[in-house]
Amino acid sequence: MQNKNKLDLWVKEVFQDNVSLGFRVDKVLFSERSKYQQVDIVKTTGHGKMLLNDGMVMLSEKDEFVYHEMIAHVPLFSHPNPDNILIIGGGDGGTAREVLKHKNVKKVTLVEIDKLVVNACKKHLPKLSKSFDDPKMNLLIDDGVKFVNETKDKFDIILIDSTDPVGPATPLFNREFYESASKILNDDGILISQAESPFYNQDIQLSMMKAQRDFFKTLNIFLLSNLTYPGGLWSFGFASKGDISFKTDTTEKFKDSGIKTKYYNPDVHLASFVLPDFIKENLSGIIDN
Amino acid sequence: MQNKNKLDLWVKEVFQDNVSLGFRVDKVLFSERSKYQQVDIVKTTGHGKMLLNDGMVMLSEKDEFVYHEMIAHVPLFSHPNPDNILIIGGGDGGTAREVLKHKNVKKVTLVEIDKLVVNACKKHLPKLSKSFDDPKMNLLIDDGVKFVNETKDKFDIILIDSTDPVGPATPLFNREFYESASKILNDDGILISQAESPFYNQDIQLSMMKAQRDFFKTLNIFLLSNLTYPGGLWSFGFASKGDISFKTDTTEKFKDSGIKTKYYNPDVHLASFVLPDFIKENLSGIIDN
Repeated sequence: MQNKNKLDLWVKEVFQDNVSLGFRVDKVLFSERSKYQQVDIVKTTGHGKMLLNDGMVMLSEKDEFVYHEMIAHVPLFSHPNPDNILIIGGGDGGTAREVLKHKNVKKVTLVEIDKLVVNACKKHLPKLSKSFDDPKMNLLIDDGVKFVNETKDKFDIILIDSTDPVGPATPLFNREFYESASKILNDDGILISQAESPFYNQDIQLSMMKAQRDFFKTLNIFLLSNLTYPGGLWSFGFASKGDISFKTDTTEKFKDSGIKTKYYNPDVHLASFVLPDFIKENLSGIIDN
Repeated sequence: MQNKNKLDLWVKEVFQDNVSLGFRVDKVLFSERSKYQQVDIVKTTGHGKMLLNDGMVMLSEKDEFVYHEMIAHVPLFSHPNPDNILIIGGGDGGTAREVLKHKNVKKVTLVEIDKLVVNACKKHLPKLSKSFDDPKMNLLIDDGVKFVNETKDKFDIILIDSTDPVGPATPLFNREFYESASKILNDDGILISQAESPFYNQDIQLSMMKAQRDFFKTLNIFLLSNLTYPGGLWSFGFASKGDISFKTDTTEKFKDSGIKTKYYNPDVHLASFVLPDFIKENLSGIIDN
């Protein structure tokens, strides 16, 4: 129990006006506003440091490994030769950290719209933001939609490590964006997109998958567990332009890579694509599960 | 958004003094105290009706199907001939409802210590408690530990559908109880136990599995998603006295059964036993994963 005289400080996120998630706060470490959003980093008593954008929990030190391992390793171990990787969003650096564990990756371009997120994480979340110091990193502070429309580069994998479709990330959920993204992917390219809660966001998940469908040969959803997101069950979209299947046995590649993980392993990779019936029904006829 | 003049009513569960989960409440439907615990049923705006014991969320109408399908169908489809089933706890009736979907089940004995839970659920949660009207049901208001020590009956499957190891359920997490339970199982019997959060309760999970180990041939953990429990990721223990493996292909049996589910399917069954490395490491040398 806390000392009775101590300030009873909590951060609370209210979701869909129905559900709230709260975390006891020891100290507010960072609190500033950019032209895009409010950015806060707090030290919690149970989850280590926590990043919030516009009051929504983005990550905590306790469990960020799950999200970042899954968004990176599922596509990177599926792809035979992931040279050139694009990350849209992900200004905390956690996704880039996991991508950079793959020795065959030659270049990682990360396009974050909000410099304040990068600066806050550089100062307070070095375990994630240390990836920005890697010589393979090409960090751009720019609008992801603009970048995808204008770049002449071609990528093997695009990871959309975005916030929710409110605020600055909204255009990243549009059909036009997915079309542009598919055009800058190589023929065997893979697009991964943050695909919200399969319980609470069935409508968003369905519209995202419909919007991606026309531009990819196969389309699927995979699941992960996130302690600081409402309901805990979360998902990513897996869209493949060529013949790379989500059902990939990565046992040998994972072993050879020497990469250390806490959540991802080759069995978890395959199991994450096994969907309960209520998720399959919602996306029936759209995804290839 | 809610009407500004409306009472801003929430139920909140604080977990390990660090994390809170809240649900907006439309109305308190039931609120009484038994000699064991406080029992409340509230109508929430986002999750339908919700049962709380001692202020801890037990279930909500929105997602109770996940927990109840998984605790029942994983062992019942694994076992070749589950005739006689014992449920310890489960006074809401949800687990019994799923067990009774199996036509080969001849008798379900449910031992709930707290009559008030049964009465509250009979009144306000008929979708779960309707199972008590089934002619195969043998509902006993009794202490589960006492029942297990005294019964002359033998069971094919025991489901420990308990609250957490605080309050009345505490003895259900002891080595002595698991030993007694194993003695009233048939030689090919299976024991399923509510095994807490793999993230937040690593110590409880480890001590539970250690306490069960000596009395069972194989021991494992399987995972499920529960929106109203802290972190969302939850688990059950799967302990098998004989040769029935947790790795059972239930495709044909599931199809033949005609049982309708929303979460469980034969692929989810197998995938639920695929464990991330941090869970395997915690239980290393104890479970057979």
